[in-house]
Amino acid sequence: MASTHSAEPTASSPTFSVRGSKLIGQEMFRVMDHAQALERQGHSIYHLELGNPRMVPPPIILETTMQALRLKHLGYAPMAGLKELRAGIAARYASLTGQELTEVQVVISPANLLIHQFLDITCNPGDQVICFTPAFPSYLAAAAHLGLHVNAVPLVVEEGFRLTRNHIKAALKLKPRAIVLNNANNPTGAVYAPEIVHELADRCEGAGIWLLSDETYGDLTFGGRFATLASARAKQVVVMSSFSKVFSIPGFRTGYALAHEAVAAKLALSNSTLFSCLPAFTQLGCLAGLAVIDEYTAGIRARSAKLTGACADLVNRSGVLHCHVPESGFYLFVDIARTTLDDMTFCRRLLEERHTAVTPGRSFGSAYSSFIRLAACGQEEDVLEGVRRTIAFAQDLGGCRVQAA
Amino acid sequence: MASTHSAEPTASSPTFSVRGSKLIGQEMFRVMDHAQALERQGHSIYHLELGNPRMVPPPIILETTMQALRLKHLGYAPMAGLKELRAGIAARYASLTGQELTEVQVVISPANLLIHQFLDITCNPGDQVICFTPAFPSYLAAAAHLGLHVNAVPLVVEEGFRLTRNHIKAALKLKPRAIVLNNANNPTGAVYAPEIVHELADRCEGAGIWLLSDETYGDLTFGGRFATLASARAKQVVVMSSFSKVFSIPGFRTGYALAHEAVAAKLALSNSTLFSCLPAFTQLGCLAGLAVIDEYTAGIRARSAKLTGACADLVNRSGVLHCHVPESGFYLFVDIARTTLDDMTFCRRLLEERHTAVTPGRSFGSAYSSFIRLAACGQEEDVLEGVRRTIAFAQDLGGCRVQAA
Repeated sequence: MASTHSAEPTASSPTFSVRGSKLIGQEMFRVMDHAQALERQGHSIYHLELGNPRMVPPPIILETTMQALRLKHLGYAPMAGLKELRAGIAARYASLTGQELTEVQVVISPANLLIHQFLDITCNPGDQVICFTPAFPSYLAAAAHLGLHVNAVPLVVEEGFRLTRNHIKAALKLKPRAIVLNNANNPTGAVYAPEIVHELADRCEGAGIWLLSDETYGDLTFGGRFATLASARAKQVVVMSSFSKVFSIPGFRTGYALAHEAVAAKLALSNSTLFSCLPAFTQLGCLAGLAVIDEYTAGIRARSAKLTGACADLVNRSGVLHCHVPESGFYLFVDIARTTLDDMTFCRRLLEERHTAVTPGRSFGSAYSSFIRLAACGQEEDVLEGVRRTIAFAQDLGGCRVQAA
Repeated sequence: MASTHSAEPTASSPTFSVRGSKLIGQEMFRVMDHAQALERQGHSIYHLELGNPRMVPPPIILETTMQALRLKHLGYAPMAGLKELRAGIAARYASLTGQELTEVQVVISPANLLIHQFLDITCNPGDQVICFTPAFPSYLAAAAHLGLHVNAVPLVVEEGFRLTRNHIKAALKLKPRAIVLNNANNPTGAVYAPEIVHELADRCEGAGIWLLSDETYGDLTFGGRFATLASARAKQVVVMSSFSKVFSIPGFRTGYALAHEAVAAKLALSNSTLFSCLPAFTQLGCLAGLAVIDEYTAGIRARSAKLTGACADLVNRSGVLHCHVPESGFYLFVDIARTTLDDMTFCRRLLEERHTAVTPGRSFGSAYSSFIRLAACGQEEDVLEGVRRTIAFAQDLGGCRVQAA
């Protein structure tokens, strides 16, 4: 009856399932836990590991959430999410795309979980999924956990990590069950040309390949032209996004998917099976935020353009580190190859010796062990100090090498 | 490469995965959605479908949550949950059990999701899981979704739906990979004898069988002696509970598991893989609630004893319906066999004709299509009116039958 269980290292440990043994998690949460342990020892840490925006969110979101708590919106909400919030999201994307979108195409769920839910409802164990790398670790973690085979189609640093027709061709040639697209990209900050992403969507729809377009950073694009793939008709193209980054409220844990009505219904059933529903009071807060989203994100975009530009400038003038200049979001994907340290060692020592927390590159694909990701979404001075410490650490490593020679 | 995909009914629907096609969800959420649709048409509905407590929660929980929002606790939290909350829960169970429990044995996650996470990290597709039925639908839904084989060991109505040595013997004889215990029970309100549940735990631990003890209603026991299975040493016994019912805050979507340190670490990794973390502000609210939990639940227990007693009395004097008198929580599992309607028809017609929403019995196991579940956790007058409408509907059905004869 029972299938093969994973062998565990010692006789005294519990024996987990195969899926349990394939859990990866998110490296940046482990870095954060380590950083917080150092903080509890009294150290002051510069947090550049997580995309954890510490900007002040739109006041109306917090006021509305508190008002909902006061009014005792404390019960279960519909499994697909509050109808008003779903309708508000549909209206926004209808206006962005010029298409007729309605709330039956929208499902509310934590964005990280939506990645898992999408792969879960579309792919069977052993199926092949394409990621264009470097890619957000949760795609790789969700696919591994579900027993899917990930094939990486690497983006090219000399092309600014942008998606091209060649990448689409390479991906389709592999005849995958699903493709995960991340536009704008985390960790590179690259934004893909509208005609290229639309071509990918059309070709996936035509070939019966599922496409997840993770657009979490789309609204934070300052250096390119971002195009959503939200569609009134496509059956196999699912768009997802999050309120975490655009409203600086990651703690709200609220995201959404836009999909064909049948797919949205399936995702709602997944919600009901997994976690029942999300809180109504946080959803009401997000709904209030929709009224100010364009105005608020304009400020965030201006800030990110300036701060990531300044960080990239420091990095690229360091003589030892290098990065592509981001066009969206707040990450910098930094090449540390010249330090000769691998990413894990670099990150561990940077945290312990310079009290600066960053994420190892291999979290974004096995080929990226000579990269690190810096998140420039904290207080401006802290971010700049963290970047300066990272650069100084890298330069001192170089200096040591020369001295040792 | 790709495994067999599920066949979908029409060529125009998207083709989902096998796991996607095995999503069941929770019937009571569909009933709630249907009831809310009727409300939008202007009808007034008596909600006895969901265990959605509408009592006023401890004020300190809401005040602390709002204060945390004001203080901008809006970032990511640790994947296992806030250390302070985990330590608070460990301290409470240490005092309940007289054992040394610490925060490394506690993980914060939505309780419904914890069922899925437990089965996911412990069982492989095809493995056998035992549920003592009637059982909370999420056990069945999570098992089906994960491709597990559920074997029902039915509890006996004449024994007050209590767990006995015979049930333990029957369960162990089937050599399952895992057993899910629900004490106190939803939907029957039965509380199992401490020596029996401890015997089950000891025998599972001895036999290397995983045991999930869902104790969501344990703190709401008013008519028996409830014993938690939280243990400082057991490797394969996982206790879970929720703040939803004990604090009347289902919308907070916050629960927890107590487990061996290695199992807790695996559950935290599951959190990180699936949804990253829960909000810090809701966790801080729950932490504040721990200070008043005994005082608050005493009031809820007194209320539930009185209200479920009154409901059971009405039901058992109806001449057509029958139920066991609950000893915990706020559900009544009502036998509707004498109406000759099956549960689905009964529930649909009761909602449409008498505007009263209840849950069909088959949600709790396929053998229970002549039962319905009533949730007595709304306003007292609404609950009593809902019960009266349910009884009147059943009686009128009987009357029609007699007239037609």
